[in-house]
Formats: sequence, C-alpha cells, structure tokens
Amino acid sequence: MPVGPSFGSSAVDEHPCDPNTLLREVEAFDAQFGIDAARLFPLDFSFTFLNHGSFGSTPHELLAEQARWRDELEARPIEFLGRRLPALLREAATSVARFVGTEPERLGFTVNATEGINAFLRSIAWQRGDEVVLLDQAYGAVRKSLLRLEHEFGVVVRDALVPLPVRAPREFIDAVDAATSPRTRLVLIDHVTSPTALVVPVAEIVSRARDRGIITLVDGAHAPGSIPLAIDEIGADGYAANLHKWCCAPKGVAILAVSSAWRSKVHPLATSHDYGRDFNAEFDWQGTRDPTAWLSAPAALRFFARFGWAAVRARNHALAAWSQSALCEMWGEEPISPLDGSMLASMAAIRVPERLARRHSTAAELQAWLYESHRIEIPVIDWGGLRHVRVSAHLHTKPQDVRRLGEVIESAARGS
Amino acid sequence: MPVGPSFGSSAVDEHPCDPNTLLREVEAFDAQFGIDAARLFPLDFSFTFLNHGSFGSTPHELLAEQARWRDELEARPIEFLGRRLPALLREAATSVARFVGTEPERLGFTVNATEGINAFLRSIAWQRGDEVVLLDQAYGAVRKSLLRLEHEFGVVVRDALVPLPVRAPREFIDAVDAATSPRTRLVLIDHVTSPTALVVPVAEIVSRARDRGIITLVDGAHAPGSIPLAIDEIGADGYAANLHKWCCAPKGVAILAVSSAWRSKVHPLATSHDYGRDFNAEFDWQGTRDPTAWLSAPAALRFFARFGWAAVRARNHALAAWSQSALCEMWGEEPISPLDGSMLASMAAIRVPERLARRHSTAAELQAWLYESHRIEIPVIDWGGLRHVRVSAHLHTKPQDVRRLGEVIESAARGS
Repeated sequence: MPVGPSFGSSAVDEHPCDPNTLLREVEAFDAQFGIDAARLFPLDFSFTFLNHGSFGSTPHELLAEQARWRDELEARPIEFLGRRLPALLREAATSVARFVGTEPERLGFTVNATEGINAFLRSIAWQRGDEVVLLDQAYGAVRKSLLRLEHEFGVVVRDALVPLPVRAPREFIDAVDAATSPRTRLVLIDHVTSPTALVVPVAEIVSRARDRGIITLVDGAHAPGSIPLAIDEIGADGYAANLHKWCCAPKGVAILAVSSAWRSKVHPLATSHDYGRDFNAEFDWQGTRDPTAWLSAPAALRFFARFGWAAVRARNHALAAWSQSALCEMWGEEPISPLDGSMLASMAAIRVPERLARRHSTAAELQAWLYESHRIEIPVIDWGGLRHVRVSAHLHTKPQDVRRLGEVIESAARGS
Repeated sequence: MPVGPSFGSSAVDEHPCDPNTLLREVEAFDAQFGIDAARLFPLDFSFTFLNHGSFGSTPHELLAEQARWRDELEARPIEFLGRRLPALLREAATSVARFVGTEPERLGFTVNATEGINAFLRSIAWQRGDEVVLLDQAYGAVRKSLLRLEHEFGVVVRDALVPLPVRAPREFIDAVDAATSPRTRLVLIDHVTSPTALVVPVAEIVSRARDRGIITLVDGAHAPGSIPLAIDEIGADGYAANLHKWCCAPKGVAILAVSSAWRSKVHPLATSHDYGRDFNAEFDWQGTRDPTAWLSAPAALRFFARFGWAAVRARNHALAAWSQSALCEMWGEEPISPLDGSMLASMAAIRVPERLARRHSTAAELQAWLYESHRIEIPVIDWGGLRHVRVSAHLHTKPQDVRRLGEVIESAARGS
C-alpha cells in the first residue's frame, strides 16, 4: 500500500475523526517526548511559523551534522570528493532508498524535486503532438517545465480537472481518465498537491496509465516524511521527491527514483564524466559541488526515527486535520476535502472568509498583511476563484499557532 | 585585453623569466603579507597539497561567512528564500560580474561550470549534422556533454588538435581554424585547459568564429582568480566559469555569462516558476536549494582583494612558472609550453620522467603511490602518450611543497 490505512482512498468515509481526539493525539505526542521546538529547530519563534511546507526547517542537530561533513571535505578535498564520495553517496542512498521504499541502485540525488522531474522529462524522446496529462492542481514549476517541452518539442499538456471541494480520492482518478487519450505519452501526477495540500491516489492512477502503455512520473515533492511511502509499490517509471521538506534534511536534498526499465534511459540534467556509464555513477558525480546536504540525509531520517516516523507523521497529520476542522468551524467555511482528514498529509488548505479575502486585492497582499501586521508566516493561495491559507504541521508547530491564525483571521473578517 | 600582458599571445617570447626571479617574487609576497597557510586554509597540512585546481580550497573565513548566511536562512526560511533572495542574489551577481568583466543582468549562477556549459548547449536548436569544434585538450565532462547531444540530435564533434609541446598560443588558433568547416555551428573553447594547464587565446578564437557566424562558448572553469578576466571583451556568446576553484568560494559557485543576443534564449537546466519571464529571474530561482555558497562569493572576492588580486595572481603564476622550470630542469624533461611561463596561469603540467612512468601501469597508480607512500596530493594525467603531473599554486602552496614533489619523483626515477 503506497498510502497508509488512514490516508487510503477506501478510508475516506470510515474514519471521521473528532477534532478533540486529534488535538489530544498531538498533545500526547508532544508531552511524551517533551518536544521543545526552540531547542530542536533554529526558527525565529518570534514569528508564528505555519509554512513548513515551502522550504522545510532543518533541526540544529542536522545543521551540525552537515558542518561536520563540510569540515571533513575541506581538510582533504581531493580525498573526499575524488575518492571517498562515491561510496559515501551510495551509503546515503541506501539509507534513503530504504526509507522511501525503493532500491539504492535506482535512486539518484538531485537538488530538488523539480530538478528530478526535469531530468526524467529530458530523458524521453518526445514526438510532436505527444500529450502529457497533468492535474490542474499540479505544481507551477512542473507546469512550466512542460511549457518548455511544448516550445521545444511540440508536447501538448492536458489538464485533469478536479474542482474543489474534493469529496473522494476517486475524483482524481476519474479526472486523469477523462484527460487521457490515445496520444497520451506521459501521466505526471502529484502525490500531495501543492496549492491544495491533498493526497492523490497515485498508485491507482499509475496502475491505470501503465495498463494503457503510458509513461508515469510522480511528483512526490511533499511525500517523504509526511505520508508512508513505498515508491516501488506505486510502480511509476519515475518518482521525484524532496527530503528537505518533511524529512527536514538540509536544503538541497531530493531524489529521483526510476524503474528498472528506465534506469538506463535517465540521465541527470548536467552531463559529466560518467555519461553513459551507469545511472548511479552519473547521478553521484554531476560535477564539483557541495555534497554535504545529501550526505546528511541519513542523519535526518535517524533524527525523527527516535520518535518513530509513523508517530511523527500521525502527530503532524492529526494537527493538520484538526486545523482544517477547527478553522473551518471557526470561520464558517466549507472544507475543500473530507473533514475526517482522510485526504490530508501534514498540511491543510482552508478557505479564507470571503469578507477578509475581499479586503486584499491579491493573495500576496493578504500574506504580507499576516506577516507584517501579525508576524504569522503562512502561504495564501488563490484556487478555483477562492482564497485559501495553507497550514503546515511539523514538530515545531503547536495547536496554539493555529488558534492564533484562526483568531487573527476571524477577528479581521468580523471587523471588516 | 581579456588576458593580461604577461599571459597574452604577443608576450610569449618577450618575457623570459629567470627561475630565481620568480621564486623571489613568491617569497616577497608571502613575507610582505605574512602568509600563514594553516591559519588561512582548513587543509590538512600533514599532506603536501599540490592540487588546488580540481576543487579549490575555501579559507576558514569564507566558510564562516557561509555559516552566517545559513543561520540567517534557517531563522526565517520563507523570508530569506521567498522574499529577500532575489535582491541578495542580484547583489552577489553585481559583485561577481564586476570581477569577471560583464554585466550582472547577463550573469546567472550555476553549481559548476559544466552545468553552465550544459545550460547553454541545451539552449541551441540543434540540427542533425551540426558540427562543434572542441580542443582535443578540452575538459572530459564537456566532451561527454557533446556526446549526449550527438546521441540526441546528431551533433558532430570536430577536434582541434594541438600536440604537445605547445610553442605559442597561435597553435590553438590554427588548430581551431583547421577544425572549422561550413557546418560548424559552435566553437566551444577552454580558457585554461584542464589536462595540460595552458592558457588559450580565446579572444582571438572567438573573434574569428564570430566573423564566420559561428556560435561561441568558452569553458572558463579555471579562469576567474587565476588570470585577469574581462568576459565582455572576449565577446563570446556564452562564458561559463567556476568561482570555487581559483577564487576559493565555497563549493558550488559557478557562473554562466551570456551576450545580450543570447540573454533571451538561454535557460537554466532545471525549469522552474519563472521560465520565460527573464534570464535573471530564471537563474535566480531554480527551485529550493541552499544559496549560501552563491551569496558568499562576494566575500571570497573581498578576501583576496586585501592582498590585491593582481598580486595574488602574479604570485601564483610565478610559483607555477617556477615549478615548471625547476621540475623540468630537475627531472631533465622538456616543458610542454614555453619555459617563460607565458602560457601558464596558476598551474603547470610537467612530464614525469619516463623511468618512473614505466613503474606504474596507469596514471591513477602513480597518483595513488604519491598520495599513499609520500602524502603528496597531485593529479597525474596521461596526455599525448606521456605521463604528467599538474602542479597547482595558490596562497597555501609553498615552493618547498614543489621541491618535495621534485625530490620524491627524482629519487624514485633514479632508483628504478
């Protein structure tokens, strides 16, 4: 199962969750481990930080780990980069592959998921008129990557339209089906959508596309660390993901995992000495760079393993689901996905009251107002003609952060 | 003048330099500034480190600068990456552009020169049969990049053959001329060659290619910090370079500078949100990454400015030229370029005595022997059927390091 029992498509109507139960789950976790956000994370806590999702946050301990790697590198640069690095990277890849459910031989490091997506896209021999099916909720940078392919090779993008609110995972499957045609060459699907923070039933979508002989690529930018992940069970030809988001690795840690069939066809974006030799050799040497973030990825996985990854994910999911319930109720807004949280990972996008939305002509203005006037850091996103905030929940996020957001917006909406 | 008076093609026969004068120049610089390598650089000085050229070495002070940037980023990740970064990168680009002689509006950061070369190559609409002229001494990763274009688009590589020894810069010009044909689409030329460490008269080569309507791209991987550089005076369509080599910036700082005409045509390898918007916007946001190395580049330029960059380059060039003279004399070997050092920057490739070369079946074996048995770190390169060591000279390199290499090799060659 690519997604765990509480996130699977069949679970949507079976796990209505009482907001108080969710809240108690978060509080129990934090009490059990004595979570002290300021001791663990280097964030400036004079701000209410509700945007882990965009760039993550790296614990002090992992920054120290990265600094240790850098010191080692700088002491003997040639020994480190020229001799030891391939084995060190294979070791890191082995640890990461185990975590995401694939084989290290089919896993390459990239700087971010977009780079991995781009590398895979560049490895397809496009024909003019080839169609790519993409969710309308797909990540903007991925859409732009396809636009470049449209300009260069005449590739055509077909949107799979999933209007909000989404009532069941099935809607994603049906939308992709509806956008698929005999000319579909690739289905490129988000595992967790960025603007709307919804978990997509990628295994089912990939399986249906494969049955039709269509290439499949998953954008799992938000997946590792926020949902249980078994890449090989999804069975896509390519799977790109970040570890600097929900696994809290230092900035610049991402992966591209490919199927056995694609291993010999996929190359990193920058061609270097090992072109044509081997997938791992090519990804492990993409020219001189600082590899210390990649090498620190296993430490990030160990960091949260002390709490238990399943417990960390459950705590963050409970906080995201509670945020959706609590804010929707407080603001009197309809949720964009089932209130039981069955389609959420560690984030929730919630509609902003219309009366507040009208007071700022753009999403960026509301976001700036929250940041500047209330020291609340949260992304504001316009989608489907409505304005949303996207709440992120990681170990440094507290229920009171969400309550504060709720009150600031509620009071501003009332006051307008 | 893209290359300074002591490196220009016209200077070859005019500046014979007495080895003792060169040596005194190095000693005078080190005495004047009280250079204490171990205080400045984090290298493990229990090794004789003669390979600055491959990956550079970053002074303590610049690593601290990078750590300060990282602390700032981690305190407010969204504020830093999402709001402040574009202006910070433009500031860094302005400082770097001034140093390399171009405009910040036409300068984008990359992780390494190979990535910049690849980005430029990907921005050309190749036609089957298009020819690319490349030096036989070109960097291996660049050759591999062209091999990928050969596989994907049917591009054909034509080698400009410059046999060793090279007696004058003219030989590079003539070799490129000889390899050029009416089908030549691109001349891709190294500014300082990697295996042979020779300064190439790129301005003249670019000018001749432009007269024939050929696209020009310079691989200046070793140029910034080791030779005076005025990119816009060279006039190439693209110029890629590293700052982590001879400018000692943290690992992962490189640039791609393009001409005005190419500014709207060149995109970074990874397409992100700003695709199609603007050259600077596209290069400044290539997805989430750690930008602290790029932001530390101005500090690297300031670090050496305290000594005077011209003085630093002259000191390192004198040490490289002295190394060539002294080692060729000690080993009884013919130099591969004029003994006056007029074709050298901060490195010199010197032939290893035949008797020693025969004792190790590969270059890698000799390199391993020097490292493991004598704690000498230096690259060993086979070129033109002969074996060479490549000596690098930066502020942490001392004449006695070179003497030690000389004696170890001399004694081993005698003893065999």
